[in-house]
Amino acid sequence: MIRFRAARREDVGRIVALLADDPLGAARETADPESYLTAFDRMAEAPGLFLIVGEIGGRVVATYQLAILPGLSLRAATRALVEAVRVDSALRSQGIGAALMADAEARARAAGASLIQLTTHRSRERAHRFYERLGFTASHIGYKRSLD
Amino acid sequence: MIRFRAARREDVGRIVALLADDPLGAARETADPESYLTAFDRMAEAPGLFLIVGEIGGRVVATYQLAILPGLSLRAATRALVEAVRVDSALRSQGIGAALMADAEARARAAGASLIQLTTHRSRERAHRFYERLGFTASHIGYKRSLD
Repeated sequence: MIRFRAARREDVGRIVALLADDPLGAARETADPESYLTAFDRMAEAPGLFLIVGEIGGRVVATYQLAILPGLSLRAATRALVEAVRVDSALRSQGIGAALMADAEARARAAGASLIQLTTHRSRERAHRFYERLGFTASHIGYKRSLD
Repeated sequence: MIRFRAARREDVGRIVALLADDPLGAARETADPESYLTAFDRMAEAPGLFLIVGEIGGRVVATYQLAILPGLSLRAATRALVEAVRVDSALRSQGIGAALMADAEARARAAGASLIQLTTHRSRERAHRFYERLGFTASHIGYKRSLD
């Protein structure tokens, strides 16, 4: 069975490999290894940010990030934002994604969140069906702009 | 001219009035005042979370929230997430929204972010045109699910 836990610094290389093992990620995850370790350290210092891995038999096969965001809107709701979800491409359609989202939901509830939100690229049609099966509503448009 | 600054606890009532002064917000912002103050205190304790107000002549006329989110994906990019953007409905189309987003961008850059992102409801067509004019790309679908 898959077990989810907080990522450790020695997991970073494997997490980046999972991020890159993806049609959109392959072209993107080309930074030097040191910059990923620096980002890991920044995340570890941020109290509301969690980098999680899922492992089966000691091997990391899935990852996601979770941010806990208190705010005033939606009746002072605390939101949980999920980012950077990846499951090993050799292990798709085995329920790992659903287990991952159940883990994210449990951590979000434990942190007091009343809403879970995420964005996914318009081109990820399998992901759209996946999130809709899990009860998510595609109510919003996600806008991004580079600051480089 | 409009001046942006960190919100203070005594601004919370006015911020909630701005959040409610909106076709979607009107039905939502009905919690008791104390819960908004509690959320303000939680935000104030979170190092990467900023609640900002814009004031003209001492009156708060705009608000937004900004979260600074380090992460591993996108070459270890730090993201800036904008939420809960509101401009006083009596002062629309005067450039306040653009000034607000310029302030958000400046704070995001100062915090080391290389990407700014936000979601907006599918029904907010004026907002879609506004963000597209500012150079944002509608590349993603925003999914939400209540945990209540």
